[in-house]
Amino acid sequence: MSDALPPEFALIAKYFRPLAGPGSLNLSDDAAFLTPPPGRDLVLTADAMVGGVHFLPDDPPDMVGRKLLRVNLSDLAAKGATPLGYLMTVSTPRDTPEAWFAGFASGLAQDQAEFGVTLLGGDTTSTPGPISLSLTIIGHVAPGMAVHRAGARDGDGIWVTGTIGDGALGLAVATGRLADPSGFLLDRYRLPQPRVGLAIGRVASAGMDVSDGLVQDLGHICRASGLGAVIQAARVPLSPQARAAGEAWLETCLTGGDDYELLLAVPPAREAALLQAATARGIPVTRIGGFHSGPPHVMVRAANGEPLALTKGGWSHF
Amino acid sequence: MSDALPPEFALIAKYFRPLAGPGSLNLSDDAAFLTPPPGRDLVLTADAMVGGVHFLPDDPPDMVGRKLLRVNLSDLAAKGATPLGYLMTVSTPRDTPEAWFAGFASGLAQDQAEFGVTLLGGDTTSTPGPISLSLTIIGHVAPGMAVHRAGARDGDGIWVTGTIGDGALGLAVATGRLADPSGFLLDRYRLPQPRVGLAIGRVASAGMDVSDGLVQDLGHICRASGLGAVIQAARVPLSPQARAAGEAWLETCLTGGDDYELLLAVPPAREAALLQAATARGIPVTRIGGFHSGPPHVMVRAANGEPLALTKGGWSHF
Repeated sequence: MSDALPPEFALIAKYFRPLAGPGSLNLSDDAAFLTPPPGRDLVLTADAMVGGVHFLPDDPPDMVGRKLLRVNLSDLAAKGATPLGYLMTVSTPRDTPEAWFAGFASGLAQDQAEFGVTLLGGDTTSTPGPISLSLTIIGHVAPGMAVHRAGARDGDGIWVTGTIGDGALGLAVATGRLADPSGFLLDRYRLPQPRVGLAIGRVASAGMDVSDGLVQDLGHICRASGLGAVIQAARVPLSPQARAAGEAWLETCLTGGDDYELLLAVPPAREAALLQAATARGIPVTRIGGFHSGPPHVMVRAANGEPLALTKGGWSHF
Repeated sequence: MSDALPPEFALIAKYFRPLAGPGSLNLSDDAAFLTPPPGRDLVLTADAMVGGVHFLPDDPPDMVGRKLLRVNLSDLAAKGATPLGYLMTVSTPRDTPEAWFAGFASGLAQDQAEFGVTLLGGDTTSTPGPISLSLTIIGHVAPGMAVHRAGARDGDGIWVTGTIGDGALGLAVATGRLADPSGFLLDRYRLPQPRVGLAIGRVASAGMDVSDGLVQDLGHICRASGLGAVIQAARVPLSPQARAAGEAWLETCLTGGDDYELLLAVPPAREAALLQAATARGIPVTRIGGFHSGPPHVMVRAANGEPLALTKGGWSHF
């Protein structure tokens, strides 16, 4: 028999081995080996991305790679964890051009450098369906300092980082339903900005990232914490581009997904600490409402004080 | 808006939450939290399984779940690691019947109990393609005791657990190319037996599990260790059912995949220790050849001493 490797392994060697970091054994083994940082807890999360569901078939492959990594980095950021490394599975149709792998890997390389994380291991397979990606990321946090969905208390403020709705509007742009002369919204949809490094561990009583829509994700914190929530629509921070889209898109902003901003419960006594941490990282934070005791219901109030009737609670990938 | 959860979350609650263990927060958070066992190294591995590629569309869903977990447990076993927990992504077509999820989860539950491992977290999404599954498993090992692909030495014996070829023959049965009156071969294809618990850390100088075919996987150890290898075809342990298939299927046994037996390099001085460890677990082990210095080539010798000409080096999923 030939000593040459089959195409699967040649592809791994060419495009994925350069991404591999300590513990990966250059992807030449069946597993990765990791000595956990002593005295730290681990935080682990996994996300799948499927062509036609989470990204569009003609999205540039480097942006797909970066988004795959960033949505997972965003989950770690929302837990107050520092990224350590990731494993990835990549299932592609047999006719996927090599340029797709080159672009995908170059996007990952770029963001690995930006966020200080490396590839530990994974698997590549073929599929008769669309490209299917899965990434499991491992981070670490000081014991007891991880931020959970549960833990919000009556009287805590509801805070978000950055601006809300750009990702959902970017999807509308990508699918031809909205104009975007500057390209800002499309970029926000394609390339989340995970809020890695914002020190929320000593500040937030609960938190998560906004991936399925502000209202739906706030509902998750309400259920986990056993509280109700009221947000003031007028206080939800919108980008100039989202404001320019007009009032008709407000519900999309509030319930659309793909924001990857942090949604935090912060006790009044820790608001100063949040503002200090946010300023140190140059990350805008805005108080948009508050938690109160009661059933786990999210109310959105319009500027006139009336509850907004939302037809859609948020985005489900299922 | 309604306080009810969308279908994705209802499905997770009903079928996957019962699988969740410590650190998963009942799958109610965005991440899992794990305090690593003090003083142990972590071993991590990920595998994807795609409908139509790694399992057949009408395979019973409990067997699919068990196979997904077992192929990853097999990787840990081959590294000498003890399983700790796993994350999983599940992408399914929108019309997947609820019974599929029920069966899939019941298979996972059965094997979680058998192998002492629990679900930490993951993601569920829809897909326009076939069912796409991905599982990342985390295990632990005493520092320095992990078994790698590299490390085999000139003069080491080549050993395998169990019998070789049943999985590949089982695939032939499943696709109507071979008869299997007892159902043994089909069962071996559908349900790998990961050799978890075989204490190879102090015994093997290198190792991996046989998933892509004995000859191809042995080639991986040769390349990683910088050695050549010779195996005696007549010594490769075959089940009575594989023997009954006849000589025409020998190449399939040697190069087909899905064995999930361990392939180990064992120095002569540690053979007694291997036999002792194997006997303690009731796992058969067989010496099928040896490593020698030279280029990383795998030679298979027939009973008459002549090299067998294999047309296929092994199974690539790509």
